[in-house]
Amino acid sequence: MSIRIGIYGYGNLGRGVESAIAQNADMTLVGIFTRRDPSSVKTLTGAPVYAADTALSMKDEIDVMILCGGSATDLPEQTPALAAHFNVIDSFDTHARIPEHLENVDAAAKRGGKTAIISVGWDPGLFSLARAYASAVLPEGADYTFWGRGVSQGHSDAIRRIDGVLDARQYTVPIPSALDRVRSGEAPLLSAREKHTRECYVVAKEGADLSRIEKEIKEMPNYFADYDTTVTFISMEEMKEKHAALPHGGRVIRTGRTGLKGDHKHTIEYSLTLDSNPEFTSSVLVAYARAAYRLYEKEDVGCKTVLDIPPALLSPLSREELVKKLV
Amino acid sequence: MSIRIGIYGYGNLGRGVESAIAQNADMTLVGIFTRRDPSSVKTLTGAPVYAADTALSMKDEIDVMILCGGSATDLPEQTPALAAHFNVIDSFDTHARIPEHLENVDAAAKRGGKTAIISVGWDPGLFSLARAYASAVLPEGADYTFWGRGVSQGHSDAIRRIDGVLDARQYTVPIPSALDRVRSGEAPLLSAREKHTRECYVVAKEGADLSRIEKEIKEMPNYFADYDTTVTFISMEEMKEKHAALPHGGRVIRTGRTGLKGDHKHTIEYSLTLDSNPEFTSSVLVAYARAAYRLYEKEDVGCKTVLDIPPALLSPLSREELVKKLV
Repeated sequence: MSIRIGIYGYGNLGRGVESAIAQNADMTLVGIFTRRDPSSVKTLTGAPVYAADTALSMKDEIDVMILCGGSATDLPEQTPALAAHFNVIDSFDTHARIPEHLENVDAAAKRGGKTAIISVGWDPGLFSLARAYASAVLPEGADYTFWGRGVSQGHSDAIRRIDGVLDARQYTVPIPSALDRVRSGEAPLLSAREKHTRECYVVAKEGADLSRIEKEIKEMPNYFADYDTTVTFISMEEMKEKHAALPHGGRVIRTGRTGLKGDHKHTIEYSLTLDSNPEFTSSVLVAYARAAYRLYEKEDVGCKTVLDIPPALLSPLSREELVKKLV
Repeated sequence: MSIRIGIYGYGNLGRGVESAIAQNADMTLVGIFTRRDPSSVKTLTGAPVYAADTALSMKDEIDVMILCGGSATDLPEQTPALAAHFNVIDSFDTHARIPEHLENVDAAAKRGGKTAIISVGWDPGLFSLARAYASAVLPEGADYTFWGRGVSQGHSDAIRRIDGVLDARQYTVPIPSALDRVRSGEAPLLSAREKHTRECYVVAKEGADLSRIEKEIKEMPNYFADYDTTVTFISMEEMKEKHAALPHGGRVIRTGRTGLKGDHKHTIEYSLTLDSNPEFTSSVLVAYARAAYRLYEKEDVGCKTVLDIPPALLSPLSREELVKKLV
């Protein structure tokens, strides 16, 4: 029997989930739920589109609802609201607010007798797993997360809000010498500036004051002030031609020592190189949708994170096949 | 309360477990069980040593027994025998026989109402996890496991059994051009010879026929015949000076495509660089001992593999701390 999936929110992530479902033979896409006028939405696969506020009327036709909204305002409201009625997956990625979100979703899911998995994707998500496994295995050590080279959508958006900016793309770039120091096992203390640089490509309005824009970017607190930032002004044509894609990636590195005197060094490195950040994140969401469905079938309800999920539940293979082929 | 650990078998792996326990504040080493005369065994930490055949008399004092014997003859007998009386962890690594071992240990553990986790280490173990996560997330793709550069103890032993050989050390070395092809995403079909080379350092008896030894190594089926193998004869002094350590490592790489037309490539790479293969393997065993104990406390008995274990169970941190710090 196929796992019946609903998609709630239809931007880059929703489209990624739609195409990821087509790669998983044990899943069927029931429908896409949007706050826009459904008749205005054209889907990649011809999947039916419904108004978001009609979702509850389809609760018996959907095994897992995958939420594809944003972390700033959508998910903190939508995930608890839907978790009372559906098994749900989200990619909530505001790290500092994950404990609070977990609590809200857990209460709703338990009330409804449903299973939820939050903060699924690659960071949080696969990188959380990499940090957890590595720190359990090497308790005397230090870990480091580097991002990029890749497009940070949050930083790109922050630049777009500056007066005089028409479009912007920000690449987060790890500093090679910092990677080398970390991999060497010296366990350096690294400031934000020592780990990453930020490259900004900006299309400005004609006549805008470029030096003011550059200054506003470089001095923006939290986003840029703590980094070495470069700003390059380009034409709209160049933006469309060279910066249309959303590549990303990164790595989690943990180094540690074993032996009674700490005589032996070890390095664990988990790295991702992604042509499309939203499509890869979607693929992770879909694998965890399978796990949510299986947990629900075992009546294991409430809200989970990736750290709570046995890896075997992510795979379409049976336990026997997994043991034979992958262990 | 501390988790009380027993070590069964005291070679490189047993010593590794002994020192790993010292790095984990929530664990206590109760004793080491050996088939040798206990009075002849000197431990690294002064831990007490007992005769292997007295282990059962201490079953109420040990929460988890970590088996540190070999996969060829020790573990297929010892793990099922002990799993009926103790929660157990082993590093059984004969991939082809894991399903059979799992079945035997599962029957014994269920009979005794105990929890067992088998095939724990890095391959099988952490590499099995890397393969399982990556293939669930990128269903349309291919994965590759490379080992080394590092010492293969099985291959070193095979050389030592040749007439005229006093000592030997074999390094498994991944071929850089194969790594590059895999990382590029072209998903090549690679033969054994195209993935790894084998470097052998051999100390021969005085007057031994070196060209015969070299020929016997290079033509040995399964071990060397399918690889480009180099043989270098060295003195016992050089062996002791340059080849005393047991470094190893390797990487699991999966490349795959997403999007309805497979337009986007992605690469997931998990790599280990280890100064001491046995100490690192031991550290993994100890982390899974914690998980076995917690599963047993929840009355989740029977035999598991790493794919069945929620990652949160490996960590000494509480779920709340994990969510806050690592997700």
